[in-house]
Amino acid sequence: MEYLLNDWRRTHYTNKVNPTITGEEIVIMGWVHEIRDLGGIIFVLVRDREGMIQVTAPSKKVTKEILEDLRGLSKESVIAVKGKVQDSNKAPNGVEIIPEEIKVLNLAQQPLPMDPTEKVKAEIDTRLDSRFLDLRVAHVSSIFKIKDNMFKTVREYFDEEGIMEIHTPKLVASATEGGTELFPITYFEREAFLGQSPQLYKQMMMSAGFDKVFEIGQIFRAEEHDTLRHLNEAVSIDMEASFMDDKDAMEILDKMISRVLRSTNENCKDQLEILNQTLDIPEGPFPEVKYDDAVDIVNSKGVEMEWGEDLSRAGEKALGESQEGFYFLTEWPTAIKPFYVMPQEDRPEISHAFDLMYKDLEISSGATRIHQYDLLKNQLEAKGLNVDAFADYLKAFRYGMPPHAGWGVGSDRLNMVLTGVENIRETVLFPRDRRRLTP
Amino acid sequence: MEYLLNDWRRTHYTNKVNPTITGEEIVIMGWVHEIRDLGGIIFVLVRDREGMIQVTAPSKKVTKEILEDLRGLSKESVIAVKGKVQDSNKAPNGVEIIPEEIKVLNLAQQPLPMDPTEKVKAEIDTRLDSRFLDLRVAHVSSIFKIKDNMFKTVREYFDEEGIMEIHTPKLVASATEGGTELFPITYFEREAFLGQSPQLYKQMMMSAGFDKVFEIGQIFRAEEHDTLRHLNEAVSIDMEASFMDDKDAMEILDKMISRVLRSTNENCKDQLEILNQTLDIPEGPFPEVKYDDAVDIVNSKGVEMEWGEDLSRAGEKALGESQEGFYFLTEWPTAIKPFYVMPQEDRPEISHAFDLMYKDLEISSGATRIHQYDLLKNQLEAKGLNVDAFADYLKAFRYGMPPHAGWGVGSDRLNMVLTGVENIRETVLFPRDRRRLTP
Repeated sequence: MEYLLNDWRRTHYTNKVNPTITGEEIVIMGWVHEIRDLGGIIFVLVRDREGMIQVTAPSKKVTKEILEDLRGLSKESVIAVKGKVQDSNKAPNGVEIIPEEIKVLNLAQQPLPMDPTEKVKAEIDTRLDSRFLDLRVAHVSSIFKIKDNMFKTVREYFDEEGIMEIHTPKLVASATEGGTELFPITYFEREAFLGQSPQLYKQMMMSAGFDKVFEIGQIFRAEEHDTLRHLNEAVSIDMEASFMDDKDAMEILDKMISRVLRSTNENCKDQLEILNQTLDIPEGPFPEVKYDDAVDIVNSKGVEMEWGEDLSRAGEKALGESQEGFYFLTEWPTAIKPFYVMPQEDRPEISHAFDLMYKDLEISSGATRIHQYDLLKNQLEAKGLNVDAFADYLKAFRYGMPPHAGWGVGSDRLNMVLTGVENIRETVLFPRDRRRLTP
Repeated sequence: MEYLLNDWRRTHYTNKVNPTITGEEIVIMGWVHEIRDLGGIIFVLVRDREGMIQVTAPSKKVTKEILEDLRGLSKESVIAVKGKVQDSNKAPNGVEIIPEEIKVLNLAQQPLPMDPTEKVKAEIDTRLDSRFLDLRVAHVSSIFKIKDNMFKTVREYFDEEGIMEIHTPKLVASATEGGTELFPITYFEREAFLGQSPQLYKQMMMSAGFDKVFEIGQIFRAEEHDTLRHLNEAVSIDMEASFMDDKDAMEILDKMISRVLRSTNENCKDQLEILNQTLDIPEGPFPEVKYDDAVDIVNSKGVEMEWGEDLSRAGEKALGESQEGFYFLTEWPTAIKPFYVMPQEDRPEISHAFDLMYKDLEISSGATRIHQYDLLKNQLEAKGLNVDAFADYLKAFRYGMPPHAGWGVGSDRLNMVLTGVENIRETVLFPRDRRRLTP
């Protein structure tokens, strides 16, 4: 068995093998997707990241060694094929490869723990247990190609807007928002926690004068959720900008999301088709629904909600039914938003906070932040939080903190919208929930 | 006191205020860097992310309110200034702003916990304790502008090479390399760990057929180091590619580093100047030093090293003295490299592993990986590791794992090389070491 590449290198991805290179000798490398042995001729469909190509081995044209190697192949084995490209009416790309030499780089054991050709549909848990096989399925890998494009577009936008990338620590000494939903770590002799959000750090970077920053990074929440929309480890897109307010932050968010939608349509046509997904590009800015009106809409749909309450899941669904796609939820009561959210000056019971929703799914939360030390300290106390635990954070407000605003976007949730999948586990390579820590 | 922006918005960063806009009414926002009150005239140097500009308030030309507000300012307070741009021979940029209206957005308390004008140099611990102030110093923020450019260049390169971004979990059930240097977490009712490297996950992505992937993300190591080159939380640039070997991976790494060096020279001229740093661009590929020769060099410098040992700190220093800049260390003994490193076929005591060094600093480690299930299992056993703990990882090798190679780069160390700083803490916004968990 020839396990090693040695001096062989791929010359073409399978999607680049087409009639323009008929007659050329090429090398392709990939997985055995299908194999049909008709006696006098063997067909092998070889798959790589970009597509598939047919390798055709007529027993009269190829060596005995090649026929033997091909007959020894199992599905999902890894092979390299050196051969000539030849026109073919019957082959999928209009061409096929006649093998001159092959290398079997790794034989796949049989039976496979799941069927990556999806003739038998597997449950999500079976799929996640063999994620490396599941990800070979075109509609599964399409989700991650769309995600890759999503992050690229987001970064390109931030770059154009002069928003700098930062990396803030995930090991923290105390809670971000005073919640109890933190994973404790043993940090040498001390207790520490995993960051549930870069919130306090990106705000400190405003005091540091970095003006406009973003971070794309992991957040960790020890919530005991078991839903299709929550994970205990997620990737958040966080933005914070100085000398701006909630309306400016909403505009940046609106532009970013619209750009991601357009870029997905432009760059991920094949993936959207595989996923049977169409994306509408909103015309103009996302509509705004005020919290007061949201309460009325929810109640009108028969779901009880009092003014001052957060949206229940039933409330989100009721509200989502009344909306087409993305919309901002604004003018939230200050009492149900975090301590760092700026109250309105003339009616402090209402805040400068907003959520971005897609139908019934919360995609982002943001706000103008409090930048005045005294007000911030008061709000911490009013929420019953331990002011001493926030000493390092508060210090940054005493020596020149500018006005600022920002938001965080759940990147996995945004990917759900782009791909149309209904379980957030589909959008994460190796998801982490209450029950799942592996693979 | 006017705390709020209301309808004021910045029209120009200070570096855009120059004689081409003389006569225009503009709004700048930033920090009071210096203030000089000569009685009949007040000069305020206002600093923002991009530079500084002089605001000049002659008592005959501006209102009493403005003079009063300016006299009430403390250093590092945040202000917004609306005013006309006027030519000036004496002002730093050839222009100054005559204020028509100002807003004091936040007064800085005095005394400051450190002096951001650096008339008094502070110790690293004092600086990190007030990092938000320390980061206002030009040579400190320059480090992070260079870092931002570094990551952008790396991503641009990966994009051009068709290397896809992935995000793998930081919450893991067991150790990556079987080491004991892991931070334990309480994950609901179970014990889990923080990922010390995405190694096993990026390898599983090769089995998933993603072909070429990268991840830029946090890694966590519970090492009790107290050096200038180690942190307990770092950001790693990881790359893994299928159908490639160590030489291919080295070429990708070489090209990436060289591109980062060129791009830093091109895009970060001002920052390099502030840091008093020059970067030489290597001509051609980085030189290669074989492990055997390294042992000889180290011994020749009077540092004892036996064949088969890893480089000690003294050994790294001795070797570093003999080298100009970047170089690859190759042909490592298999026994001192991790279990997943491919041994050479004809002499298995030598591996297909390499390190990238910059003088005496290790920047990267990489290798051809073992892709054969049986060999990998043997190596795990030979290293005395618990094979069962690697069950999920091993499974990915049984059903079609291609040959692959890859590496990880310590991004903070690479940034040390670019910026010339000698303490890795300088290159991280909020560093984490054995003693420091805050801010």
